[in-house]
Amino acid sequence: MHAKFSREITRMKRIEGQARGVVRMMEEERYCIDILQQLSAIEAAVRAAKSKVLEIHAAHCIEDAIRTGDSEGQRQKFRELVDLFEKVGR
Amino acid sequence: MHAKFSREITRMKRIEGQARGVVRMMEEERYCIDILQQLSAIEAAVRAAKSKVLEIHAAHCIEDAIRTGDSEGQRQKFRELVDLFEKVGR
Amino acid sequence: MHAKFSREITRMKRIEGQARGVVRMMEEERYCIDILQQLSAIEAAVRAAKSKVLEIHAAHCIEDAIRTGDSEGQRQKFRELVDLFEKVGR
Amino acid sequence: MHAKFSREITRMKRIEGQARGVVRMMEEERYCIDILQQLSAIEAAVRAAKSKVLEIHAAHCIEDAIRTGDSEGQRQKFRELVDLFEKVGR
Repeated sequence: MHAKFSREITRMKRIEGQARGVVRMMEEERYCIDILQQLSAIEAAVRAAKSKVLEIHAAHCIEDAIRTGDSEGQRQKFRELVDLFEKVGR
Repeated sequence: MHAKFSREITRMKRIEGQARGVVRMMEEERYCIDILQQLSAIEAAVRAAKSKVLEIHAAHCIEDAIRTGDSEGQRQKFRELVDLFEKVGR
Repeated sequence: MHAKFSREITRMKRIEGQARGVVRMMEEERYCIDILQQLSAIEAAVRAAKSKVLEIHAAHCIEDAIRTGDSEGQRQKFRELVDLFEKVGR
Repeated sequence: MHAKFSREITRMKRIEGQARGVVRMMEEERYCIDILQQLSAIEAAVRAAKSKVLEIHAAHCIEDAIRTGDSEGQRQKFRELVDLFEKVGR
């Protein structure tokens, strides 16, 4: 099931749990430094998820373009992919 | 209640909901571009949360240092704060 | 001449000049805030240069892969390109 | 001479030299990957310079605020410093 994103679903559920953990830390008025550390961990996890989804998307686009065969269509598809990488990278 | 972090708790609950939304999008095998957009929104929200917690911490440190009064202690506290900003900023 | 990078050469010469400008500002012990602003401008210009060189490289790889024609070679080339985008993006 | 920024001047002269090196690489139409690597090195060096100038500025502000002594003035100065860190950090 959900073969395409199965690992990323696990990853996102972990992020959801981490966000809930930060809510609890804030309710308990825990030390800011500890909260910041948790937020940095979430930020890194979200970036990793983005990177993985982008990779899945790129692999799909590449297969699609190769299957199509026609040069102009391939050129178009790859340029869109390059634009996406630039946009997401920022 | 939880006066210190009340707005940030609301913010984190929204992030938790957004992460749950991405799980659902992945289960429905939604288009990667839409998922990436959601992940970018979460990333921005987590950064904003970090920035706010850092601000709360800094305000607290500043009041603490001013109350203490002694120069050497103040110097020490502010240097720690500068180090923290550099660490978290990356 | 240097058709491939002609605009980027102009860009890099401007960055070189900006760096020299910061040296001068530091020698004149100008206000830190002004120096920081100049450094941020240089950072943005270097990022833009990176982005442009990456684009030139990607366009070249895409043409090369399309010309080759063979699917396995194309797959290989595009994966390398995706890896490069991920590496440079960080 | 220029005691305040002496190390940073050395650093900026090195960055200036690196930018000139990239101009040469581009004129010789060197491989994009090598140029990208050099640009990443410059980006890292510029960030390090920013970080150092910010540190020098913060140290100066802290001394200034401590010397002033009056609480309201200190509070004001530190808040400005926190704002600056947030602005530069992005």
